[in-house]
Amino acid sequence: MEQVELKRLAAEIGEAILKRMAGGEAAPAVVKAPQRWTPRAIAAMIDHTILRADATETEVRKLCEEAAEHKFASVCVNPWWAAAAAAELRGTGVKVCTVAGFPLGMTPSKVKAEEAAQAIRVGAGEVDMVMAVGALKSGQLAQVRADVAAVAEACHQGGAILKVIIEACLLTKDEKETACKLSVEAGADFVKTSTGFSKYGATVEDVDLMRRVVGPSAGVKAAGGIRTLEDFEAMVRAGANRVGASASVKIVEAAHR
Amino acid sequence: MEQVELKRLAAEIGEAILKRMAGGEAAPAVVKAPQRWTPRAIAAMIDHTILRADATETEVRKLCEEAAEHKFASVCVNPWWAAAAAAELRGTGVKVCTVAGFPLGMTPSKVKAEEAAQAIRVGAGEVDMVMAVGALKSGQLAQVRADVAAVAEACHQGGAILKVIIEACLLTKDEKETACKLSVEAGADFVKTSTGFSKYGATVEDVDLMRRVVGPSAGVKAAGGIRTLEDFEAMVRAGANRVGASASVKIVEAAHR
Repeated sequence: MEQVELKRLAAEIGEAILKRMAGGEAAPAVVKAPQRWTPRAIAAMIDHTILRADATETEVRKLCEEAAEHKFASVCVNPWWAAAAAAELRGTGVKVCTVAGFPLGMTPSKVKAEEAAQAIRVGAGEVDMVMAVGALKSGQLAQVRADVAAVAEACHQGGAILKVIIEACLLTKDEKETACKLSVEAGADFVKTSTGFSKYGATVEDVDLMRRVVGPSAGVKAAGGIRTLEDFEAMVRAGANRVGASASVKIVEAAHR
Repeated sequence: MEQVELKRLAAEIGEAILKRMAGGEAAPAVVKAPQRWTPRAIAAMIDHTILRADATETEVRKLCEEAAEHKFASVCVNPWWAAAAAAELRGTGVKVCTVAGFPLGMTPSKVKAEEAAQAIRVGAGEVDMVMAVGALKSGQLAQVRADVAAVAEACHQGGAILKVIIEACLLTKDEKETACKLSVEAGADFVKTSTGFSKYGATVEDVDLMRRVVGPSAGVKAAGGIRTLEDFEAMVRAGANRVGASASVKIVEAAHR
């Protein structure tokens, strides 16, 4: 190995260590990685999710029962089911998470904000909105920021937290950074990788990038294609402090072994 | 061939002829099939569509230019772009079609109705809403009917027409029939096969079933996966009088040859 290559390698290693330290210490939002998480700790980071169009009331109720049993952070359901899920989960400590402008993100701000406000009125405590991806790609940055701000206001007025789905699989690296910055500036409590309805879901690279951009002051939720305990652990190691999954029970049970 | 088989065959042929006659005559909404359609007649049946989340303003404007040139029935865009499309199409005779509760259909009725009303205020003349598929599958028929009725009211008050997407690929045969009946009873002007975002799009069988259920008094729109003139013709022969497509220019140009 040449001298100059060795130097570059040393610098890169140093940088990687510093980056990991910065990501892993200061933050309330950042999870310190133990060797292994307990099943309870894992469950507390999972939004137990069913967003298929054809999911039935029976499936939603089963999701709630599982969430109450395993103490997941929330159930994540379409807004049609928010009231039913809230009734089912009363007294369990599990929150209702729902979505707004999902999964395309291209509904106007007023509609997204009203969607969020209505879901909060019937019991939702968390809202995952989709950023207006096409507007971002058209350079309408002020409108995209205002869109997030409108939903953030509706959420915070109702005592709910807001996650902004940037749909990373559709974005360039620069757009991902812009999307994360804009979201946090506009009041997002979390940024989230994916809807699970587009080209692909969460990747370790995207979670890492998002955590670096938002720093320790906002949450990062990884969602889409997270099906095993190993997937879960990879996302949390990369910087996620919340994970959306449908295979949540399987993930938690794997941690019992 | 055995006598009994011949008899069955004869009965089936008779039934098929009667069915085709019932579907193909009376109706204002039903297109009488000529040997070949003119490019202009084809264009007048097409909703020129771009509903990708990441479609840009530039792409939407190009869609509008193409629609104005070929005289498509409408452009179909996400509601974020409804105002821009309306401005672009002023004076061309081409309508703006947008969507509500798209593509999952599981937003509450109030939100869908507000989404439709707002799009109409900024210039949309047609709204394609998605039926609450999961609610239908849960037996919530009164709620599903009320959902369509709420959006129908918003549309008709604003002078717009309503198409109800039943997302046929997620439904059993019985559910498809129920979905079509409910929609027409609740005030839908059209039933539509698919969002183009689920398992598969329009099929000849589904269009045929839908036309038989709604009869001549409502429209049938086929959408999803219609990419060639042959696809278009098959859908219209099966009973569609509107077709949603992205490859619209290619379809019309094929008819020029």
